[in-house]
Amino acid sequence: MAPASWLDVATDSRFSLANIPFGIATFPGSSKRVVTTAIGEYAFNLSVFASNNGFVHVAETQGQLEAFNEPTLNALASLGRRFCGAVRRSIQDILKFDTPHPDLLKNNHDLQRRCLSPLAEVQLHLPFEISGFSDFYGGMNHAYNAGALFRGQNGALLPNYVHLPMAYHGRSSSIFVSGTPVRRPWGQIVEDLRATEKKPIFVPCRTMDFELELGCFVCGGNAPFDSIPVDAAEEYIFGYVLLNDWSARDVQRWEYVPLGPFNGKNFATTISAWVVLADALEPFRKPGMQRPPNSTPLLPYLQERRDDFSFDLNLEVELVSGATKHKSTLCSTNAADGLVWSFPQMLAHHTVTGCPMKAGDLLGSGTISGLTTSSLGCLLEQTLNGTQPIQLEGQEQRTWLEDGDEVILKAWAGDKSTGYIGFGDAAGVLLPAHKQTASGT
Amino acid sequence: MAPASWLDVATDSRFSLANIPFGIATFPGSSKRVVTTAIGEYAFNLSVFASNNGFVHVAETQGQLEAFNEPTLNALASLGRRFCGAVRRSIQDILKFDTPHPDLLKNNHDLQRRCLSPLAEVQLHLPFEISGFSDFYGGMNHAYNAGALFRGQNGALLPNYVHLPMAYHGRSSSIFVSGTPVRRPWGQIVEDLRATEKKPIFVPCRTMDFELELGCFVCGGNAPFDSIPVDAAEEYIFGYVLLNDWSARDVQRWEYVPLGPFNGKNFATTISAWVVLADALEPFRKPGMQRPPNSTPLLPYLQERRDDFSFDLNLEVELVSGATKHKSTLCSTNAADGLVWSFPQMLAHHTVTGCPMKAGDLLGSGTISGLTTSSLGCLLEQTLNGTQPIQLEGQEQRTWLEDGDEVILKAWAGDKSTGYIGFGDAAGVLLPAHKQTASGT
Repeated sequence: MAPASWLDVATDSRFSLANIPFGIATFPGSSKRVVTTAIGEYAFNLSVFASNNGFVHVAETQGQLEAFNEPTLNALASLGRRFCGAVRRSIQDILKFDTPHPDLLKNNHDLQRRCLSPLAEVQLHLPFEISGFSDFYGGMNHAYNAGALFRGQNGALLPNYVHLPMAYHGRSSSIFVSGTPVRRPWGQIVEDLRATEKKPIFVPCRTMDFELELGCFVCGGNAPFDSIPVDAAEEYIFGYVLLNDWSARDVQRWEYVPLGPFNGKNFATTISAWVVLADALEPFRKPGMQRPPNSTPLLPYLQERRDDFSFDLNLEVELVSGATKHKSTLCSTNAADGLVWSFPQMLAHHTVTGCPMKAGDLLGSGTISGLTTSSLGCLLEQTLNGTQPIQLEGQEQRTWLEDGDEVILKAWAGDKSTGYIGFGDAAGVLLPAHKQTASGT
Repeated sequence: MAPASWLDVATDSRFSLANIPFGIATFPGSSKRVVTTAIGEYAFNLSVFASNNGFVHVAETQGQLEAFNEPTLNALASLGRRFCGAVRRSIQDILKFDTPHPDLLKNNHDLQRRCLSPLAEVQLHLPFEISGFSDFYGGMNHAYNAGALFRGQNGALLPNYVHLPMAYHGRSSSIFVSGTPVRRPWGQIVEDLRATEKKPIFVPCRTMDFELELGCFVCGGNAPFDSIPVDAAEEYIFGYVLLNDWSARDVQRWEYVPLGPFNGKNFATTISAWVVLADALEPFRKPGMQRPPNSTPLLPYLQERRDDFSFDLNLEVELVSGATKHKSTLCSTNAADGLVWSFPQMLAHHTVTGCPMKAGDLLGSGTISGLTTSSLGCLLEQTLNGTQPIQLEGQEQRTWLEDGDEVILKAWAGDKSTGYIGFGDAAGVLLPAHKQTASGT
């Protein structure tokens, strides 16, 4: 049972007292970006709160208050998961009905006026300055389905898939916060890839897709040439966001052999603004998807002591049609039904060569797809590579995204009794391609 | 003919008055990282010089002097190629024998003492805080040779190669400045990739390689969802470094299909400390390698107005044996003999989707190999994937790098009459793998 707050928090609020996500916001009347949390319908300015002795009872924060005065969460995350967990628990203590410290905020109406604003009145920003972004391929149903469509069923799941959490390095300069419109990219494509002579053309992408993923922000963790053991990796996980890995399938398909996805992915990645702390999801751990038959057991550096490596986390993709404005639910699934590799395994694998992790680095889970059509996490899978249109509300169909469409990812754990742990949306409207590119074509 | 300097600059110095590269150094007695150039045997502290009115005659620098007081070159590069070119020309003016401004430094012995230190006494650092790193595949001989070894001669050069400058996103957290030792990584490999049942093992890499590349630092250039036209791309090029893309071939080979290189590359990339400004290489432009027969002409967004897209730039790889300390020249080639794609084409392709470039982003050229054995830019090619050992000085052989080996990349344009444009080394010693990894295996 989630404790009640002295603030008016609806029982179905995604920002219950059990959540307390961290983000970066600007409050009304100021352009300063500040560390913020969400509670019920309020944004809570942790920068102002910290500088008014709000964390005076939290021993860990002594000498560390400047991290609350930064325009990103990087400094806070670099202080580590335990530090951030202690801050979250102290915020829960301060906001709960029977708070042991009523003078800090509950009875301090002046400070409430300076710290709390309606969520609708703050602007949310990218929570981190992201340097490293690596996008994994941890959803086995997606890997199988996409592989079958690109390479046929025999080559669908390549032999390495069951032995290592594979990934490509992504592009961090084009990671946008929820609400940022995304423009359809131009790119080089080949209409008939089976023709002997390939004739590429340069056109706006014709097969725009989304991908439903979880993102994981890390606290840093290893110096160059050191590594993070799989069973210690949890310590270096700051928290989670939703991640839409927008994909230009036609561009991707022509370019991706042998160096992997590049222009097919690097124009935009949308993440939700609130980072749900790893601690908030602990009560929702559960075993993930059964790994595939694998005659060779996992190598020791990937073996986890615990098998509850996934989360009972509801995931949805909504599409608001640009043409009709009707909203359709395209996908409804659960994180535990799609991922066969855990974030600790991803961190262990990524760093086993000695590759250093920095605070604010982001790992993508890979597309999370269940086994039914309505639980597939991208249009490539849902429409069988554009050959089977799906039905939308309002008498429309889609094979790929159309200009004006808005894609909204949603996630939540819990219920009214535990309190909901909501992620906030990862949303973006697809704008039409530029009429021509800068090179005049 | 390079002008003479009032400083004692040897005619064979790689840091002639025609060069004036930019870097970041700490000078004796201080831990502050400062913007620096190299002239002859001296490091020249541009931060102290700027704050002592050294650039008073350079109109562009008015109000921009704080860029010289930063611990990286990011702020300077963000001011653009023209700005940095004007600064370089003014430094040449100040250092030349018949300087029009003798009072600024030539006759100011006190400021000379505060600005100039022997190069041997300064410590050089990573010149940029690097966020985006993309590694291209612009050397066609390398692409063909590596492709033939990985996929056989029929699939050596894939159809997309001749139509687009392909690349993968690299890892910026493991880019190190010359002189930083590199540790042999552990990784997952498969000894017999042709076996039906793949049995990966976890071992220190057995097939460590280097790759000879040029790196290109950009000034930024495009907002999200805009692009940089190929014929405007030169404006956004700050300068060039040498780049050793250390490669764990066995790790790479098992992991790279379908998402491209990841752990095989992400443990270390070494760059030279001095950034040779794009302006300094202008006199050495020349047509690059003939592009391959290509029945479809390049798409307009990749067509350049000029064909002198490459550089008459000498490149060498030296290996100092860890066992014998003998130095061998492994590779001797020229940039114009290897690259079929230019950096403007790489920038145009990378941004044609709208992917934004930031000041300090780094592009790698891909491995530069000529057509003869002694001009191949990596051991994979030189030893035909480890099957043909090469001879070293001191009665040794190598198939792959051994612990203790030092790899040194060198580059220079020009001669005694023009003045040499040297890059400084990109060097790194290979340390043995950790005895065990953090996970105890």
